[in-house]
Parts: sequence; structure tokens; C-alpha cells
Amino acid sequence: MTHPLFTCFVLCLLCVCSASPPNFVLLFADDLGFGDLGCYGHPSSLTPNLDRLAAGGLRFTDFYSTSPVCSPSRASLLTGRYQTRSGIFPGVFYPGSIGGLPLNETTIAEVLKPLGYATAAVGKWHLGYGANGRFLPTKQGFDQYLGIPYSHDQGPCHNLTCFPPDVKCFGLCDVGAVTVPLVHNDNIKQQPANFLDLERAYSDFATNFIITSVKEKQPFFLYYPSHHTHYPQYAGPGAAGRSLRGPFGDSLYEFDSTIGNLMTTLEKMGVINNTLVFFTADNGPELMRMSRGGNSGPLKCGKGTTYEGGMREPAIAFWPGVITPGVTHEMASTLDILPTIAQLAGAKLPPVILDGFDMTDLLFHKGKSKREAMMFYPTDPSEERGLFALRLGKYKAHFYTRGATHSATTPDHDCPGFAVLKAHDPPLIFDLEADPSERYPLPLEGRPDIQAVLAQIEKVKAQFEANMVFGENQIAKGEDPNLEPCCTPGCSPKPTCCHC
Amino acid sequence: MTHPLFTCFVLCLLCVCSASPPNFVLLFADDLGFGDLGCYGHPSSLTPNLDRLAAGGLRFTDFYSTSPVCSPSRASLLTGRYQTRSGIFPGVFYPGSIGGLPLNETTIAEVLKPLGYATAAVGKWHLGYGANGRFLPTKQGFDQYLGIPYSHDQGPCHNLTCFPPDVKCFGLCDVGAVTVPLVHNDNIKQQPANFLDLERAYSDFATNFIITSVKEKQPFFLYYPSHHTHYPQYAGPGAAGRSLRGPFGDSLYEFDSTIGNLMTTLEKMGVINNTLVFFTADNGPELMRMSRGGNSGPLKCGKGTTYEGGMREPAIAFWPGVITPGVTHEMASTLDILPTIAQLAGAKLPPVILDGFDMTDLLFHKGKSKREAMMFYPTDPSEERGLFALRLGKYKAHFYTRGATHSATTPDHDCPGFAVLKAHDPPLIFDLEADPSERYPLPLEGRPDIQAVLAQIEKVKAQFEANMVFGENQIAKGEDPNLEPCCTPGCSPKPTCCHC
Repeated sequence: MTHPLFTCFVLCLLCVCSASPPNFVLLFADDLGFGDLGCYGHPSSLTPNLDRLAAGGLRFTDFYSTSPVCSPSRASLLTGRYQTRSGIFPGVFYPGSIGGLPLNETTIAEVLKPLGYATAAVGKWHLGYGANGRFLPTKQGFDQYLGIPYSHDQGPCHNLTCFPPDVKCFGLCDVGAVTVPLVHNDNIKQQPANFLDLERAYSDFATNFIITSVKEKQPFFLYYPSHHTHYPQYAGPGAAGRSLRGPFGDSLYEFDSTIGNLMTTLEKMGVINNTLVFFTADNGPELMRMSRGGNSGPLKCGKGTTYEGGMREPAIAFWPGVITPGVTHEMASTLDILPTIAQLAGAKLPPVILDGFDMTDLLFHKGKSKREAMMFYPTDPSEERGLFALRLGKYKAHFYTRGATHSATTPDHDCPGFAVLKAHDPPLIFDLEADPSERYPLPLEGRPDIQAVLAQIEKVKAQFEANMVFGENQIAKGEDPNLEPCCTPGCSPKPTCCHC
Repeated sequence: MTHPLFTCFVLCLLCVCSASPPNFVLLFADDLGFGDLGCYGHPSSLTPNLDRLAAGGLRFTDFYSTSPVCSPSRASLLTGRYQTRSGIFPGVFYPGSIGGLPLNETTIAEVLKPLGYATAAVGKWHLGYGANGRFLPTKQGFDQYLGIPYSHDQGPCHNLTCFPPDVKCFGLCDVGAVTVPLVHNDNIKQQPANFLDLERAYSDFATNFIITSVKEKQPFFLYYPSHHTHYPQYAGPGAAGRSLRGPFGDSLYEFDSTIGNLMTTLEKMGVINNTLVFFTADNGPELMRMSRGGNSGPLKCGKGTTYEGGMREPAIAFWPGVITPGVTHEMASTLDILPTIAQLAGAKLPPVILDGFDMTDLLFHKGKSKREAMMFYPTDPSEERGLFALRLGKYKAHFYTRGATHSATTPDHDCPGFAVLKAHDPPLIFDLEADPSERYPLPLEGRPDIQAVLAQIEKVKAQFEANMVFGENQIAKGEDPNLEPCCTPGCSPKPTCCHC
């Protein structure tokens, strides 16, 4: 059955459709590995709702984020531009960071606002807080926001989960000492955030947003970047101890349950057939924690590295009746989400250099991806070195490799932090289709075909880097403890005195 | 909808059912890893038919073979007994092997024959050939057989695939020098076997068997142990170059295509709703070949090792209308197939010690598995050391570990052959649900819960080993070059002169 809207898009690709504009739900997991979902082969994860989306939607096997750590990845997702352009590179923001995603960057929410969309963000922002919350989602096109504006372990909150590891009390241990704020729009609503009730609050906020938007006949954009499954994992009473997989599995299951709530709400409100639901994650799994890390499945290493495990992510596009269920091996990226949403909504693209491509042909017509290459930037100061790796078609060349603390405790000695920076000249080249695990670098000697591939990769790299204009480095602006969100600003000693 | 046969089994669990007895199709891949199928998360494999079986059937996440190499694993599959009982331990058979699966062992085919089942085996036997083919499938309950009686690289045939690796000429390179025989029932039909036409021959043989059985109103048992995806990979003209994944992917796709043919035949002949189709594989992936190996996904190491990657396998049970589609995390094994088939057919179990458990409750009622433990035997001479590892519930204890040549070229230094035998006292203990990749051995100190688990594991191990009676070692009987199947027995020099 062809959905009316679909026909509409086919018939009037460039004109304004008369059907109601589609809604968008963008789900974004945190530190989730390529191998962490049931539908991506994990043997003990409990992800019934994501598995259902995968079975009824388009599941990507070659989908990339732009960075193996949080803030840069999120900047690219929301702007459709490599993080280097917006200056969210390298590294991540901290509670007292002076910088943030520049307000002149155009987010997906800002692309949709002129068309009358209701917009909301719920969960982990991590694109800056700044003086008086000047970098919050409400300053970037979102009508509403409920969430923790950075990683929930930046509180400090390093002991949220309990020890020994099998004790099921996630969210209980040292909640009292946690100073992570829960922000509603521009105000701190709760400090410390109550992790045992957090997912329920998010789920209620998100479903209410959908219900209200539908009732008010507004098309909507819901952005839900979850804290799950970032360390330290937590789970409320409905999820703790429910998965087979311990704290990580319970955290993932809690996120999955919220996705279930959102799907039910879309269905009940009669908009499921007019909503694109897109799921992916910010970067590869953290592998440094005993039984608390994620799993990159067949891919090499994880978070913090530019190997596949650091940057290739699960991704699912779901739109019943419009997207034909299946699996695609086409290359795509978080960068492509903004242009795709803009195309579907009939919105204007921001007048800046975009690195994303419209995926509608791939999503709706099983077409080829317009993306031919993917650039791999590292996580830490190396602007002068530029790209660490580049994928062109099925080939990936590593010009530099390095392990990362985030990827410790794997048996692969290339992954942990002690695997220091290595320059490769000629680069290591892999055929990612025959060898997705990056185990067998292709020989160049006696292989003119591979030499030609390398020449082409080097050409694409040179062109890309010659045209890259680095934005003002927002992370290098440093931190000011006075900027840390605190309910009782004048209190002492910070941050433990910040309570409300 | 409940299938009538299903109701029949529920109502008359121990009486004879009046509905026609079910058919059985047992599909067995060779050296296929836990992560090699699309439905188990491989990003570039092409397995549309297996993915369909998984989507419409029960997919196992915790299914085990009994050995990380071929012959022992096959002995257990067909007898429902650990390979140690039948003497197919340790090691594998060779073309001139004197021994074979003892004829007094009862195979699944022999369990079904008294009930009037038509039985056929097609593909790789690898349970002995012996003097005048005395160990062939036709001596073990199979009415018909078409296949190569051992691994297709035991010919010698070490160069079947071409180099450089991207050249698509699998099956062409040195076919002339290959002396692998294609046996039909008790006779050599073709020598050397034509690998470019082999899969077509197998597919035709198997579909004809189904068609004839249905026409003659005989219930049937088809056992199809494929040569795919064992090294050296080959693929006929319909599959070569069709997958994204190179020779391995093409080999897998060719097997998958045959499965598609079988499913179409079952459907066309009107028996798909009365047939249990079961798919699994003999052991983990070979990882020693450049781009030619399989992939164990998130699991540790591969073929030849007693880590999870060596012995945990993809497995799918498919029976439309009878088996509810889903995923099960229950522990099960190739050992359990014989008792399950016997139960479904209403057949008598052989009067010997069986190590398998009836899975019908698990398959049809989403019940618990009766299997509580899985024993891990190594591949090479160590009878005196006994079990290398034991899984009890979610915990696995390694008493010994060792790498294997078959698992070379992985970045994990525990996998290759140079990882020599290591005794662990106390054993390494893993929680396979929280940590399926076997990365984080659980501490015993200060953990009375883990100490109790270990005590229980040691008790189960002691009980099992005290009751294990090793069968006469069939592999230690050695080889006699005169026994190698040869079309022209008196010719010289063998085996290259063996042509017909």
C-alpha cells in the first residue's frame, strides 16, 4: 500500500504538498555500540521496541556519526555540518564550559520553526550551558526542553551504580551527592536530578508534547537524546533488574520502554502514519568499564577511536506505509538527517555549507545514497593533523590511528589509551564490506587497483580539507566554575551545596 | 492461530497423533560464526532466506555445538550424545581415516526409519568413509546420499579460491587438480567434484527428495550439511560476485539460495505447515584466512577454541503457524535436536545415554529450556584433562584455555595458536549474559555469590565427568592411504590420478 503522503512527494517533489506536513521524532542514544541492540545481534539485550522499529522499518548497516565522542557528534546531528565548522571540536563540553554551539548555527529545530512546527528537546543536550544558560535548547529553536544539559556523570556523579556489580540498586547509591541539575526550559527544576524518576519524567514530557501538538493541529519535531546508555548506567523501578544484561541492559531497556511509550502515543493520536521516527546514537560504546560498557559487535574498538567501533552506529528509519521494511547497506550519516527532514517538511536549507545529503530517495525508493565519503575526525587536539581516516565507497583509509581510554579493557591492543598516536604513510586501507572488523589491511604492492583507490581517497581528502574552514573553537574557551548551573548560586562549597 | 498439529501435541502428548507426522529439514552450515548472518548483525552478508526464517521463526541467542571442529560436532548432532561417547574425539577425520561414526550409534535418521520416514543426506558428511565406504550415510539410516564425504579442502584442494582476493573466479582456479570425490549413495559419481555446479546438484537432489517423498505420501527427514562457508570458499555462477562480502559472502549466499529453493519447494508441495526447519552450524568461524574467514560478532575467538566464538552458533527453528516468531535466550544445543525430533515424530529414543533434551516446550510454548549446562570439550589430545569449560545457567567457567591456528589473525592475543594451553585454578568465570564477549572474569575474592556458583559448577563437572564413558577413539585409529576414495583404485600416483 502506498501512503498518500508518499504519493504526494513523488508527484510534487518540489511543490508544496497539500497533505499535513509530517512529524519527526529523532531518538538518540548515548555511547551505544553497533552490536548493542537485539536487532543488531546482541545476545542478551532486551530491546523489544527498537527491534519492532527495525522489523517494520529500514535498518542501516553503514550509518555513521561524525565523532567518537558526545558534543561534536551532537553538533553535527543538529546542524548537518561537521563539528569542525561550528567549533565543537575537539573534545566535549563540561558543566562550567564558557562556549557552546554558536547561536548563529542553524539547528533542525530552527529549520522547522518557520513552517509552524512545535519543537521540543528532552534529555541530554551537551552543546553548552554558558552564562545564564545562553546555549540551552530554547536558544536553538526548541520551544521546550526538559533535561540534563550535559553528561550525567559530569556532576560529579561517579558512583551512581552500585558495587558489587550484580546488586540492583542503580540510581540509589549516591543520589544525595549528585549535583546534576534537571533543567526545564531555562530554569533548574530539580537539583540533584532524581535518576530513579528521570525516565518517567522524560517519557511524560515527550508524550504530552506529542498529544498537545496533535490536539493543537501543529506538526511537531521531538528530539530525544537519551542519557542511556552512558556510564554510569541507571534505571528506574520499572526497568532495574528487568534485562538479562545487568545495569547496561537495564539502562537500554528503560530507553527502549520510553520509545514504546512514544510509539503508542503516536498510534493513539492517529499520527503514526504521518511521522518519521529516526533512531541512532552519538558514538561507539564505552569499553573501559567492567561489565558496564557497550558492545561494538563485529566492529573494531569503541568510543574515542576512529575505528569503525567508535563511529558506526545502529540506525533505524520507521514510517509505516511509507518506508518499506528492510535493511540497507548504503552509507549514511547523522549529517544527512537535517537535509532529509528539511526536504520532507518542505523547509529551506540554512544558507551555509552543509555536509549532509537528502536521504529521501534512499528511505522511500530504496535508492542509492548520495553520500560517497565519510570523514573521521579524532577526539583530541590535532587540528593541524586534520582527518584521521576517510571512507570512500567500501574502502576506508586510516592516516592516523590511536587508542582511547574510553576503549580500554578490550583484548585488542589497538583500542586502549596506551595505543599511542601512529601516523600511517601510506595509510592503512580496509575493504569494509569484506572485512568490516578492520582486520586485514589491503596490500598496495602489486595491486594497482588498491593504489588507484588510495589515489582517489587522497584526492577527496585534499579537496575536503582545503575547503574546511574551522569555526572558532568553543571548547578551547575553557571553563568557569561560576557558570556551572546551581540552584543556590551563592552557596558554598560548590557544587555539593547546589540543591533545590 | 494455533496449528492443528500443535493442538494435537498438547492434547495427546504421549499418545500417537492422528495427523500426518511432521517432516524435518535440518540445515547445517560449516565454520559459520555467530555474527555471520544478516539477522545476527553482520553488516554486509547477504542472507535473505535465512533472515526470513529468523523473522518468521524462533531465533536462538544461546545455542551451542559440542565441539569447535567438524567431525565431533557432527557426531553429536546426529546422535544426541557428546562426541566423547561415540569416540569421535578429539580431532577430525581425513580421507583415508580407518575409523568412523560407529555403526551401532543411532542417528536421527535411524530414529525415524522405523516410523516409515524417507531419509536423505546431502553435502558434507565428515563422519568417516572407511573401507569400501562402510561409514557412509547410507549405513547410518539415510536412504540416499549425495555429497563429499569430508571437508572439501581435504582433497588436496588448497587453492580453490583465487588470488588476489578480489578476483571472482571461485571454483575455477585448480579444479583440475582437485581429487575430492562426489559420492552418490555408496558410489563415486564424479571425481574431481565440480564445485561450480555442486550447489545446483545439491539443490536439485534435495528438492527432488522432498517432491518425491510428498508424492509418495512419506514423511521425510532431509539433512543438509553444507560445505559452505568452510575454506576454501567457492560459489557457482549464480552466486559468485553477488554478495558485498567477497568469497565468504558469496559462499554463504549460495547456501542461502539453496535454502530459498527448499522453502519454495516445501511451500509448493503444500507441506510447509507440517515441516520443522532447523538451521544451525557445526562450529565457530575460521579466522586464519585473510578476508576469507567468518565472524563471531561480539563473541571471543573462533573455530578451534572453547571460547564462545568457537562454539556458540546461530540457530533458527521455523514452522509457520506452529512456532511463534521471536527470539529466545534459553540455552540449547545440537544435542537437543535428536530428542526433539523423536518427540515430534513419536519415535522411540535409542536405549543409550543421551545428552540432549526435548526442546518442544521451548519451541512451541515459549517454555524454559530443560538444558541447564553445556560442556566444552577441546579439539586435540587431552582426554586426561577432560572438559575445558562448562556453562551452568548464565555462568561459564574455563578450566583450561588455549588458542587455535584456526583462530589466528584476530587482534585478540588469546585466540591464535601461539596462545598455548593454560590451566586456570581457580577457573576463569564469566557472566555470559552481562558479558557475552568473555572480557571480564568475575572476582572470587569477597564474592560469596560467585564462590557458590563455582562450587556448583565444580559439582556438576565432577558428576558429569565421573559418568562419562569414552567410546573407542575412532580418530586415533589413524589413516590408510588405500582407503581414500578413488575412482580408479589401482592408479598411480594417488590421489591426482583418481578421475572419473
